[in-house]
Formats: sequence, structure tokens, C-alpha cells
Amino acid sequence: MPPKLPIAGVKNLIAVGSGKGGVGKTTVSVNLAVGLASLGHKTGLMDADVYGPNVPLMMGINRTPMALGERIQPLEQYGVKLMSMGFLNPGDKPLVWRGPMLHSVIQQFLRGVDWGDLDYLVIDLPPGTGDVALSLIQTAPVTGAIVVTTPSDVSLEDARKAIHMFHQVKVPILGIVENMSWLSCPHCHERIDVFSTGGGQRTAREMGVHFLAELPLDPEVRIGGDTGKPIVLRSGQGEPFLALARQAVTRALEESLHEGPKIEISD
Amino acid sequence: MPPKLPIAGVKNLIAVGSGKGGVGKTTVSVNLAVGLASLGHKTGLMDADVYGPNVPLMMGINRTPMALGERIQPLEQYGVKLMSMGFLNPGDKPLVWRGPMLHSVIQQFLRGVDWGDLDYLVIDLPPGTGDVALSLIQTAPVTGAIVVTTPSDVSLEDARKAIHMFHQVKVPILGIVENMSWLSCPHCHERIDVFSTGGGQRTAREMGVHFLAELPLDPEVRIGGDTGKPIVLRSGQGEPFLALARQAVTRALEESLHEGPKIEISD
Repeated sequence: MPPKLPIAGVKNLIAVGSGKGGVGKTTVSVNLAVGLASLGHKTGLMDADVYGPNVPLMMGINRTPMALGERIQPLEQYGVKLMSMGFLNPGDKPLVWRGPMLHSVIQQFLRGVDWGDLDYLVIDLPPGTGDVALSLIQTAPVTGAIVVTTPSDVSLEDARKAIHMFHQVKVPILGIVENMSWLSCPHCHERIDVFSTGGGQRTAREMGVHFLAELPLDPEVRIGGDTGKPIVLRSGQGEPFLALARQAVTRALEESLHEGPKIEISD
Repeated sequence: MPPKLPIAGVKNLIAVGSGKGGVGKTTVSVNLAVGLASLGHKTGLMDADVYGPNVPLMMGINRTPMALGERIQPLEQYGVKLMSMGFLNPGDKPLVWRGPMLHSVIQQFLRGVDWGDLDYLVIDLPPGTGDVALSLIQTAPVTGAIVVTTPSDVSLEDARKAIHMFHQVKVPILGIVENMSWLSCPHCHERIDVFSTGGGQRTAREMGVHFLAELPLDPEVRIGGDTGKPIVLRSGQGEPFLALARQAVTRALEESLHEGPKIEISD
């Protein structure tokens, strides 16, 4: 395995992955990053979902980043430093790059961006266990990974694959986040288990990993994403995501202590 | 571009894609295929989502297919012939194959499987506009593509990318399917626009493609998927998917007539 060189200035690297797309991985990444920043941590968010980069839309910012010498300057929004393929390839055109080119772009994002001093760099991985996700977690000094799933069996089946992938490349799992756990009817306020219930906790137990949070399927969360105003910023509504941010901080600390120094140097 | 050789015995090839995962692409593929079969068409379903093959779970079947000579025999369930990576790699282990290997597996699925005489072969593409999806639609004689999206802006942004991808490689678009369009509260029966509303139709209009169907976010659909019993089989509840199957037949016919013979032969 290639050496996982540290990224200068970056203390913790949290990868957010999922076995399956559309489970809210980017929603969790965005709200986690903004939550960490609002708790006072210096935070960056790298959108590694090169084919479907939704971070610009969800963070409400899309400009071409400037280069300073050979370093790309990240954008900044809501106190979070940002980099996304969406900033470089705006509009509707799909990116039809093949594996090796993507790999080099991801490395540029990781090491060619002037992240500065960060307590946390959150990486929004591409969904699944494909090439880009794998290359990234094999080469980046990831403190730990968060696996996002819905409670549906189909999503859990893929979440288990993602956990196995992280295990295979020896990336610690910070824990599972169950998203879209339930919907509270805006009319009658009854609970609706749209995507089933409890599967995230059961899977965490079965696989011996932590369970971090259960997040509701809330139309307001989606509206926050579609309008570029993450829900974690809204007073009264952001608490589940702030709690997740606090949990992630605790688990990242546990993993750094537990693992000891993780820098591998080789030539 | 390489020649798109016909697949012996297969009359129509319908690719189901999405810009984003988790929008219900496989749910639509499975119910479309079973719907086509129940309307009397000879139908196959090829699961090309090699990293997250959910077809076996949703179709309620998982066995290792047999080989007869050099040809792989597809499994059959609910009158639909089936092939999926999930049959070859059961369990939770992720597939960590790189691009070129995947390309060859997909070609095997397309041309090394004994599909027999089929009116429709439905291909459940991997989500997004990545390598595997692109290779497949560039080499297979696709009659037309269906693009699945939810009404959320984030999903629509990625759906537009998928439509551009099909345009780029000259695959006709049969139309857009808007999934998870609304939820009818099981308690008070009020309509809930969980993922916003109307975006699929608006996007179809803007991009000059057909709008095929609006499908509800119905916990019963998800339960059908999780238990391997597609909802289209349930009397009284399958109608939206049967209507979609009829629409797909009409649009596929229009595209075959409109396009004329599409077989390209080159040496």
C-alpha cells in the first residue's frame, strides 16, 4: 500500500461514505462540516464526488477558485473551506473522465489545495465502493470514516459493503449514521417509517461499529440542501446535526488515541 | 466510437439510468421489467450496477447461475430473465475491481449470457455518469434510455448531467421518470411533498424530452423491494408501474421507427 503522507496543517480527516447513493451522504457531510465550524473548529469540506458534486448547490456557493502560485485557494462559506469539482465544471455537462485522470484530480484536491490549518477536513466520498473512493482512502491519512445509510434493507446491504471496504484498507470506522430514519407528517405529526426502522443500529451492533446518529427524513433538511442553507444553521432545527458533530469529534479523538501515530513514511 | 453490434435475439434494449444514486433507479428497473413481462412481453433484466447490485434482493432470488458450454444461463424470476453481479459475488464483500475488469464483466453480461429471444432487455445502469455506465451505453445497441430522478433540485441537477451523457453518445431518451414524487401519509392521508414537487416535468420540458411517469414515495414500494416482491405484482397497487411499462413500450416503438435501422457494422 502506498504511504499515507500527512496533509500539512490538517489534524483530522473524516471521510463520509455510503454503500449507496441518495442516502444523504452529502447532506450529512455538509451539515457535519458546518456543524463542526459552528462549534468553533477550523473546518474544511472536500467534495470528492467528482461525477455528481452536490456540495456547491447545498452550500449555496459556486465560483471558480483562484490559484496562488501553485496552490488552489479553497472557497469559504459558513466558516467552512470548500473544494469541489462543481467549482471547476459548473453547469450540466457530465464529466466523462476515466479512472486515472480522476485519481490525479482527487490528489490535487487533497494536496494541491491551500487548506491552511484545519482541525477537521471532512471528505464527501463518492457513493459506493468504486475506484475513486478506494484510491482516496488508500492514499489519504484518514482519521476515521462515517458510513451513512437509510434503514432500508437495500441500503443496509450496501452499507455493509462500505464498512468492509474501510476495514480492508484499515480505515477506522467512526460509526454509522442512519439517515431518513422516519418522517413526521407535517399535517398530523404522526411518525411514518418510510424506509423501515432500526436497521442502522442493528447493523452497527452486528458489525461491531459505533452508532452515531439517527436523523429524520425532514422536508426542511432537503429544502436546506436545495437552497444552499444547511439546516444545521437554523436555530431549533440543527440540533441533531450538532449532536452528530460532537459525536464525530469524540470518536475521532478516541481513534487518534487508540491508533497512536499513523504516519507511515516510506521511500 | 466502437460499433454497436446487435445482441442476437434481443429486439429492444432499454437502459435505466440516473444522475444520482438512491433515487429509485433499481426499483424502477425491477418493476418495469416485471411489468413488461406481466404485459406478455419476453423480458430480461441485466443488473449493471456492479458495485451495488440490488437486483437480487429486490427480485427475491440469489443463486449462482449455471454455464452451458461457454454461455451463462440467466436466472429467472416472475417471468423475467436475470443477470447480476450479486449472483457471482454474494454476501457483503465489496468488489474492488478497477475499470478495465468491470468493462469486460459488463460485456460478458451483455453478450456472454444466454438471453434467448427477448422483446425487451432492461439494463439497470450504475448511478451517475461514470466509467461503467458510459462504456456500456457506448457499446450496447440501446433503443432508448429512461432517466430516473426525484423532484429535489439536487437530484434534478444530476439528472440533467445524465441526459447530457446520453445525448453525447447519441442514445435516444425515452423519457424522465419522477420517483418519490409525493408521500401519502398512511395516518391522515394528506399529501406530503417530501422531495419537493414538479421538478421532473419541468426538467423534461426544459430539455425537450418526454415525461413518462410520476411515481409516489410509497413505503409499500420499498417493502416490495426489501422483501423481493416487486409492487407491480400486487393487484391494485401495481398500476403506476404497469402504466410506465406501457409508456416505455410506446416510446421504444417510436424511437425504433424514428431512428430507422441502427445497426452499425464496421471491421
